[in-house]
Amino acid sequence: MHSPSAIVLVICPDRPGLVSELSSWVAANGGNIRHADHHTDAGAGLFLSRIEWTLEGFGLPRAAIPPAIAALAERLGGEGQVYFSDVIPRVAIFVSKQDHCLLDLLWRTRAGELAMQVPLVVSNHNDLRAVAEDFGARFVHLPITAATKAEVEAQQLALLEEERIELVVLAKYMQVISPTFLARFNGSSDDNPATNRVINIHHSFLPAFMGAQPYHRAWERGVKLIGATAHYVTEELDGGPIIEQATVPVSHRDGVDDLIRKGRDCERLALSRALRLHLRRQVMVYRGRTAVFA
Amino acid sequence: MHSPSAIVLVICPDRPGLVSELSSWVAANGGNIRHADHHTDAGAGLFLSRIEWTLEGFGLPRAAIPPAIAALAERLGGEGQVYFSDVIPRVAIFVSKQDHCLLDLLWRTRAGELAMQVPLVVSNHNDLRAVAEDFGARFVHLPITAATKAEVEAQQLALLEEERIELVVLAKYMQVISPTFLARFNGSSDDNPATNRVINIHHSFLPAFMGAQPYHRAWERGVKLIGATAHYVTEELDGGPIIEQATVPVSHRDGVDDLIRKGRDCERLALSRALRLHLRRQVMVYRGRTAVFA
Amino acid sequence: MHSPSAIVLVICPDRPGLVSELSSWVAANGGNIRHADHHTDAGAGLFLSRIEWTLEGFGLPRAAIPPAIAALAERLGGEGQVYFSDVIPRVAIFVSKQDHCLLDLLWRTRAGELAMQVPLVVSNHNDLRAVAEDFGARFVHLPITAATKAEVEAQQLALLEEERIELVVLAKYMQVISPTFLARFNGSSDDNPATNRVINIHHSFLPAFMGAQPYHRAWERGVKLIGATAHYVTEELDGGPIIEQATVPVSHRDGVDDLIRKGRDCERLALSRALRLHLRRQVMVYRGRTAVFA
Amino acid sequence: MHSPSAIVLVICPDRPGLVSELSSWVAANGGNIRHADHHTDAGAGLFLSRIEWTLEGFGLPRAAIPPAIAALAERLGGEGQVYFSDVIPRVAIFVSKQDHCLLDLLWRTRAGELAMQVPLVVSNHNDLRAVAEDFGARFVHLPITAATKAEVEAQQLALLEEERIELVVLAKYMQVISPTFLARFNGSSDDNPATNRVINIHHSFLPAFMGAQPYHRAWERGVKLIGATAHYVTEELDGGPIIEQATVPVSHRDGVDDLIRKGRDCERLALSRALRLHLRRQVMVYRGRTAVFA
Repeated sequence: MHSPSAIVLVICPDRPGLVSELSSWVAANGGNIRHADHHTDAGAGLFLSRIEWTLEGFGLPRAAIPPAIAALAERLGGEGQVYFSDVIPRVAIFVSKQDHCLLDLLWRTRAGELAMQVPLVVSNHNDLRAVAEDFGARFVHLPITAATKAEVEAQQLALLEEERIELVVLAKYMQVISPTFLARFNGSSDDNPATNRVINIHHSFLPAFMGAQPYHRAWERGVKLIGATAHYVTEELDGGPIIEQATVPVSHRDGVDDLIRKGRDCERLALSRALRLHLRRQVMVYRGRTAVFA
Repeated sequence: MHSPSAIVLVICPDRPGLVSELSSWVAANGGNIRHADHHTDAGAGLFLSRIEWTLEGFGLPRAAIPPAIAALAERLGGEGQVYFSDVIPRVAIFVSKQDHCLLDLLWRTRAGELAMQVPLVVSNHNDLRAVAEDFGARFVHLPITAATKAEVEAQQLALLEEERIELVVLAKYMQVISPTFLARFNGSSDDNPATNRVINIHHSFLPAFMGAQPYHRAWERGVKLIGATAHYVTEELDGGPIIEQATVPVSHRDGVDDLIRKGRDCERLALSRALRLHLRRQVMVYRGRTAVFA
Repeated sequence: MHSPSAIVLVICPDRPGLVSELSSWVAANGGNIRHADHHTDAGAGLFLSRIEWTLEGFGLPRAAIPPAIAALAERLGGEGQVYFSDVIPRVAIFVSKQDHCLLDLLWRTRAGELAMQVPLVVSNHNDLRAVAEDFGARFVHLPITAATKAEVEAQQLALLEEERIELVVLAKYMQVISPTFLARFNGSSDDNPATNRVINIHHSFLPAFMGAQPYHRAWERGVKLIGATAHYVTEELDGGPIIEQATVPVSHRDGVDDLIRKGRDCERLALSRALRLHLRRQVMVYRGRTAVFA
Repeated sequence: MHSPSAIVLVICPDRPGLVSELSSWVAANGGNIRHADHHTDAGAGLFLSRIEWTLEGFGLPRAAIPPAIAALAERLGGEGQVYFSDVIPRVAIFVSKQDHCLLDLLWRTRAGELAMQVPLVVSNHNDLRAVAEDFGARFVHLPITAATKAEVEAQQLALLEEERIELVVLAKYMQVISPTFLARFNGSSDDNPATNRVINIHHSFLPAFMGAQPYHRAWERGVKLIGATAHYVTEELDGGPIIEQATVPVSHRDGVDDLIRKGRDCERLALSRALRLHLRRQVMVYRGRTAVFA
């Protein structure tokens, strides 16, 4: 319904005049700003900005916008990215045996809540083939063992390239992604919004219960709330920048099974919200943290 | 800790270039923007903007800022207000017999959470004199009956003028404010952020349970959540622009007394959050609604 | 994994000794109580009890339990119902065009979260046939108009009887059920847990925004939270006993479309939680209210 | 308003007939049960029960109840405690410099939300003397250093004995209580509800951010929710049984100061709710966990 828009993300050293400089560039080219959000991290001396404007009637052709923004960002001593709201990212979902997140993401995509395409679902098990194929995704079953991990990850990377995948979502994949995989898929810098390309859902309120079996450990500890955390994946296990967290109350009447069941709702909500924010380019990453312009 | 800042609120018809125009005016005068938030209501064709910048090193003297903004807003066909973060508003709190909101607000003020002074507490009962005076506020006891209402409201207005009060907070005042009082204290326009000068806490999740005895009616209805609503007061009872709402779960084990007790926590949270937002000039009112730049 | 259990719900006038009388009856027959919950409504002078015990090793045969409980309840001047956890209710879901609640309920049933079978999905539109049939449910398309309503409801009732349906869930059905339908399907008394057999999800935080288009009206009113309410359906529109409510924050940035989107998550959560509680016989209805033993 | 009640907490090995045995004992003596809650921990093979009945008209004199319950519990191979709702516990609050929890607890006590007396406030600083004394509590200033810790704790224990204190609340005390102090004040067993006599509020969502400066570390980690945890204090730092947890959303706009400010509301809510549950004897401790009959 909306006409398409351009979205620019800029991160640069803070100084006076930045909001003016960025918004004036848009105005000078005839753009009508739909959203403009900024954040200054005084401790880090950094300025972050997200500006979205209507492409209709804009003075520059699309192809001219990215180089213009690159030049502008360079002049500010920072970095910039450009996205167009009608360029729908191709996303791969990695799963294991649990279907709740996969089904939820596919349903939300079909319902128009998530502006993405899902051409590819990858799994180390064959269980979710039917779910993926029902929604028109190619399902690739790649069993994985400690011995074959390097080789399988190479196959995965080849698939991602073949399908021109921009983003990988680990939707209860239950496997640790190797630094090699990340380095090859993400590219070089963790602080570049364009290079955080893997989102994971962890089934705890991080940093509580990092690692394996968080619900069992939550039950053991006797917590009164459980949670889920959607975050970008970095080399540090469960240590990447957090995008979204959700919690739900539990009681002594809840066994581990109940925690797992209640947790599924948290996981679906946290993951789908994080993914929507990412896809709308409302998330900026810097210094291991996120600014979320929601 | 922070150096003082200027805050400008502008509301005007939407058109391209507004963010640029406002931020460039700040930049041209050497201001370093701390926060810039904007909202476009496409249906209403309106643009709302809040810009906050550091006064230190700003090129214009303070006294010159309000007329400059007025001229700028007029050129945009809208209205503008200017606030300075180190001008601490004088606030009067109206109470009846319940002390929880009054004590909470006074404590938060002393703790530095609410940037306001409370020189005056007005009540139709004498019960809370000690609480008010403990925190250094003048306490004025003005009993009120149907017969004396007009006269007492005139006394209240005289007190507000005498104490140079900018904002009235109804912290469980339990009395309806007359249209006459509102017109005289608020001034003319409901859609002017400067003229919404009375904040009320209503003990329900509006628009459910408008009017009297909301907890009793919530219990009767068997709801599973109760709430509280902080809103600006307008002539329409419990119908003014909503600033903040909070809810808390209840169960069949909760009687009306429990709802009242649990509701007190909601009321304190919703009212204090709304007041903080108002005092930081993060709330803009238009067409009976609020934009809250939090 | 659990061995099956018997669940008894008793409602009777309050007096000393009731917990003892009920639990001793279970103990006298060799039952091991898994859960025992009670509630006294002092104002109403009523005692409500839910007792669940393991059938394994119980001294009475299944068939003898309901008459024994009926006799016991009669002696207490009240009413009792008996359920067995391994008797899986047959549930019909009524839908219109929106699929989120239907898909969610069918998925949760398959995942083991909801102990029900769904042999029948009824709709006034044909849109959701594929979703229903994918999960093995019979889908019956019965268009409805004001003129045909009585006739179509008769057809619906015939279907419910044919499929031996115990419970109807209105999962965004968007049609008002007539008193005639309710009377025929529910049986006579609203205060009998066995006769509340229709659950609806209303897309607002009742009693706010009863009736049509609650999200539009919520947007108009400028609320800061929206909600959903799962309740038993009675003759009074949106006035039946509430089982579960959920809310989610919204802001001025959210248009009606966003409220609808955010509301879908609330609706799914409130409806599925209410249904789980109902299916586990954790909900007792009396005097237009529910006691929820969760 | 209510007539006083007796509350019995029993923990014993699980077997059939326990609910009946306990409730029948109450009934046999003419007691009218107000609340009866039970929990079976199947893994641990334990049965926990809380029964509350009206003392009015009960067949045994008060003094005879504790020995009768002790005998009953012994016969069941477990342990039992007896409390009377009109015996108001004497509670000491330990504080440091922050006043928000202290003021909140004193206000809630005066408002009737917490059924306790606070004859004593102990602090290692003198800052909160006025707050304590305003509410009629004796304030004792005991500065503490690493060198004097053992000696000061001995003085604290003497004060607790002198004032006949049943429960100590660490309301932002910011000092670690030594195992010696705990052993002497708590008595011997951690699994005895009667011997968990120290409640702490920790300013994080445990087990995340155990130890010092949780808000700073939460900010560093970039979490999107912060929390607070009220728990019994054991020898294991921040490892005791959790009674209550609360969370609040935060964003990239929140600095450490904002986390501290928002956290104060969480701390007050979690601590006061936990304390209310404890004082109403709704909390039972076993195996490092709590069952909370709310």
